[in-house]
Amino acid sequence: MKASKRSSVIGSFKVMDILEKARGLEAKGRSIIHFEVGEPDFKTPRVISQAGIEAIRSGYTKYTHSLGMPELRVEICRHYRREYGVKITPDQIIVANGSSAGLFLIFAALLDPGDSVIMGTPHYSCYPNYVKFLGARTSFVKQSEKEGFQLLPDNVRKKIRPRTKAILINSPSNPTGSVMKPEFIKEISGLGPVVISDEIYHGLSYKRKARSILEFSRKAFVLSGFSKRYAMTGWRIGWVIAPKEFVRPMQKVQQNFQISPNSIAQMAGITALKSGKAELNAMKREFNNRRKLMIELLREIGFEILFEPEGAFYVFASCRFMSGDSYSLAFRILEEAGVAVTPGIDFGKAGEGYLRFSYATAPKNIREGVRRLDEFIRKNDFKK
Amino acid sequence: MKASKRSSVIGSFKVMDILEKARGLEAKGRSIIHFEVGEPDFKTPRVISQAGIEAIRSGYTKYTHSLGMPELRVEICRHYRREYGVKITPDQIIVANGSSAGLFLIFAALLDPGDSVIMGTPHYSCYPNYVKFLGARTSFVKQSEKEGFQLLPDNVRKKIRPRTKAILINSPSNPTGSVMKPEFIKEISGLGPVVISDEIYHGLSYKRKARSILEFSRKAFVLSGFSKRYAMTGWRIGWVIAPKEFVRPMQKVQQNFQISPNSIAQMAGITALKSGKAELNAMKREFNNRRKLMIELLREIGFEILFEPEGAFYVFASCRFMSGDSYSLAFRILEEAGVAVTPGIDFGKAGEGYLRFSYATAPKNIREGVRRLDEFIRKNDFKK
Repeated sequence: MKASKRSSVIGSFKVMDILEKARGLEAKGRSIIHFEVGEPDFKTPRVISQAGIEAIRSGYTKYTHSLGMPELRVEICRHYRREYGVKITPDQIIVANGSSAGLFLIFAALLDPGDSVIMGTPHYSCYPNYVKFLGARTSFVKQSEKEGFQLLPDNVRKKIRPRTKAILINSPSNPTGSVMKPEFIKEISGLGPVVISDEIYHGLSYKRKARSILEFSRKAFVLSGFSKRYAMTGWRIGWVIAPKEFVRPMQKVQQNFQISPNSIAQMAGITALKSGKAELNAMKREFNNRRKLMIELLREIGFEILFEPEGAFYVFASCRFMSGDSYSLAFRILEEAGVAVTPGIDFGKAGEGYLRFSYATAPKNIREGVRRLDEFIRKNDFKK
Repeated sequence: MKASKRSSVIGSFKVMDILEKARGLEAKGRSIIHFEVGEPDFKTPRVISQAGIEAIRSGYTKYTHSLGMPELRVEICRHYRREYGVKITPDQIIVANGSSAGLFLIFAALLDPGDSVIMGTPHYSCYPNYVKFLGARTSFVKQSEKEGFQLLPDNVRKKIRPRTKAILINSPSNPTGSVMKPEFIKEISGLGPVVISDEIYHGLSYKRKARSILEFSRKAFVLSGFSKRYAMTGWRIGWVIAPKEFVRPMQKVQQNFQISPNSIAQMAGITALKSGKAELNAMKREFNNRRKLMIELLREIGFEILFEPEGAFYVFASCRFMSGDSYSLAFRILEEAGVAVTPGIDFGKAGEGYLRFSYATAPKNIREGVRRLDEFIRKNDFKK
């Protein structure tokens, strides 16, 4: 028996290959420093966990409204009013089992075979897989380090074709940590196609505040969630804000393929939005300290970082002084130095020649990991 | 802006229309008896809930292995050994955010545009929507009440074509409550195409034990989960057992569109399989009492039930003595009698002329609901 073509065109996360290899080495007793992971190392804040526990105790363990609990959708509206000064209504919101599942709802409601989506690159590795799976095509716009990895509106404009259905933006960005300039968001939102704005790293920007697409346009989808900002990756809960005419098609996809989102995680989410601000700010301060530390230490051992990341929890640094083949290099670093990093090629061809370092790990791990890298670089006599 | 064609071809659950209408009436103060719901009214058993609480407390709130926690997959293997005497291995299992999400993984890995799936009808309303969404086609085999709603192998054989990729079976069945004869499962598993066996209602059969497809064939996918048997609908957790060559394609789909299943629900699931048996049996005994009560009372007021359901928690009864249009009739019954039932048409054309009564509600509600129905029938002078 053979698997479908549609499932065969999907690439795997290369970071998973690294992670599996790292776990294998750990199982054999090796010490590994993890710079590859894309999730906060913090525990879910106590007040939020407590709300999840209360939900279980009170029997909130049933199917909910397929769009998500009305109370949670009301809290999401308040959040947008408070954080961005924009007014949205609960009937524009679809709560999903994680923002990954939410992005599937968006693309499912937007794309037919032959349609096309424009996105910047380097990009979150899964984006093009959604598009391929649905029989549509991706048109990439290169973002370069010397431009601060910004997605330039002029370059986007040149890629628009009759079948272009959407422009996907992501700020703060995984993997580059760049935060889009407001004037670029504005210009891109006026180009014609609907904008899908992946705002999952909102809350984690350290210089300027990340702006929501909804501040500039209503012809847009917002993708967001709890995982990154509230350290809730395992709860699998996120949301989509959609133009009203897309809510019903997305709801039908969700009803059929998911029934409804997890009830316990939804109750925890209500509390996160109501009472999670202090914990979010504490985590953000800590991430910012680690960000500065990671940049400083990487520079000390020879990485040339032209652009200092401003958001998310990643440093995306050129590794060309060691090798142009980031995949092989990442495996060598893992095996020889005991440090797991994500090869830039995982984020598209434009990511080749880079490594992604996650600083979602304690400062002592950052110090030790960079020390090991330094040793690796010296031992191999790479020219800095 | 217009939604994609693929999302437009998906029908909605008609039961949702009834449910929304029922909630609207309740909001206005009307008393409604709910026979339409497809979820157990029991709370999640205490021992399982406690495991979920412990998971949160211990910080099991991170991404897990994309196939699901190894410990859970080991427990699932033990479950199949114990319950069915079949040996499976953890690397054949994909834990999903609910069995609905699991079925999506199966179809995604199996179907390309133009492929076809054979299934019995009346059928769970969402099945054909998965197939349509993926650009494939459904071939229906009618199951009739006088045959006990059995899926007859001869009728399945006649529908096999070169592009037939799978035969979907469902026992115990939603909506009919029928449990497949073992010899029919065996025969169907030998017809050629891979069998997808939806075993979500396993554990809830009251006469003969429901048999797993794996007792008869390894060229098969099993779809199952915790929702129905352990009253865990809101936890959104289920599993798929797949032929090994399909695990990797399904894993890639899950990694990309879901990352990993909910960590808290997985920990609760481990305990459900290890320690949930007593609670499962208690719920099953209660469901069986309600089953007999519902059948008896419906017969008393004039429903001719040729086939007594043996599994799940539904009675699928002809309403032709009142009307052949189950959708309009369901709305009339809701408005005039204050009883919510699911119209048979929700389960395909072969379900027209029937109503589905869920007995996942307390005996006093069953009595009151049937009393109201009796009044409705008398008032309208329907001939029995």
